Amino acid sequence: MTPYIIKDTPVSDAVLNVIAHLPTKSLAATVDPAFFQKLTDADFMRIAVLLAQKGYDEGGCPIGGVVVDNVSRQILGKGHNTLVQENHPYNHGETSAIRDAGRIDFSKTTIFTTLSPCDVCAPLVCARQFNRVVVGNITTISGNEDFIRSKGVQVDILEDQMGIDLYTKFRTDNPDLDNEDWKGLAEVTKSKAAACC
Amino acid sequence: MTPYIIKDTPVSDAVLNVIAHLPTKSLAATVDPAFFQKLTDADFMRIAVLLAQKGYDEGGCPIGGVVVDNVSRQILGKGHNTLVQENHPYNHGETSAIRDAGRIDFSKTTIFTTLSPCDVCAPLVCARQFNRVVVGNITTISGNEDFIRSKGVQVDILEDQMGIDLYTKFRTDNPDLDNEDWKGLAEVTKSKAAACC
Repeated sequence: MTPYIIKDTPVSDAVLNVIAHLPTKSLAATVDPAFFQKLTDADFMRIAVLLAQKGYDEGGCPIGGVVVDNVSRQILGKGHNTLVQENHPYNHGETSAIRDAGRIDFSKTTIFTTLSPCDVCAPLVCARQFNRVVVGNITTISGNEDFIRSKGVQVDILEDQMGIDLYTKFRTDNPDLDNEDWKGLAEVTKSKAAACC
Repeated sequence: MTPYIIKDTPVSDAVLNVIAHLPTKSLAATVDPAFFQKLTDADFMRIAVLLAQKGYDEGGCPIGGVVVDNVSRQILGKGHNTLVQENHPYNHGETSAIRDAGRIDFSKTTIFTTLSPCDVCAPLVCARQFNRVVVGNITTISGNEDFIRSKGVQVDILEDQMGIDLYTKFRTDNPDLDNEDWKGLAEVTKSKAAACC
């Protein structure tokens, strides 16, 4: 089957959104590898943001991640937070994309994440020896960028305003869900107890 | 339906193995809560070891975990490493049991793990604010027990010789798989490159 998305297909949010929604294993049958080769880092970050939007549209936390091969620039894994959708207490953008990628050598890859990595995802990207992490939103400072760098992983900041606006809206509208996603349901219970007295 | 496993059922590895294999959601329909209330910490650790054995029998890494409510002593989540079985690059005993438990308040629970928590699982049990971690094997020193304690989580060592023997056999027979489980496929590639030159 000839791929529908080819080298000359113009890059737009609409086509990147199709790529975000396609299962990773379906990309080889639907997208010419040459299309991925022309994508910039900002384009891959936008795919991560569109995954965050997908998660938000499902009623979840809007955080996405994409794992890309450094040489071929093909997508090896991608996903989004599924705290709500899978009743999953720690599946963030990074964990989701890494789970999707499976057992590969991450030292030749870059992970694009729409949000500054949390205290669990930061050591995970180090322990799996990623070559590079690209962060799309540091307005919520996890403070883990320097920790990741100290482990020999390159960290670049490449903010995406669409992703920042989406996450800002989410955390304003859903502070409890945001709190649970970072620190667990225990934190929500503690905050409510503190607020009531 | 009257539960098959009742308060007076004698505790044995055979019955604990049934509990290890039953889906967590099935326990309420098959085991009287009073049976769990008489189990000791060593019994819960043995269930975690039997989960490790289940994983090993499936061809995977023998590491298990169990999340238990501190007051009711009921099992809220359990699981084992699925690196091989699910092609899952970071699903350890702890992550598996926490995923199984879902969105609960972990501050009222204890996690039993057959192996000293890794650099990812240690911050995870802290970030989800577990009350207590019980470790069944510190022969492989992750060195993370003090880190976990520094975050206010109680850590107890309760070694289980069956679990230690199983893990020792596994890592002797499968050094590459053991290496991948801790540090990713990148580490295996590096080790092989170093060994060949």
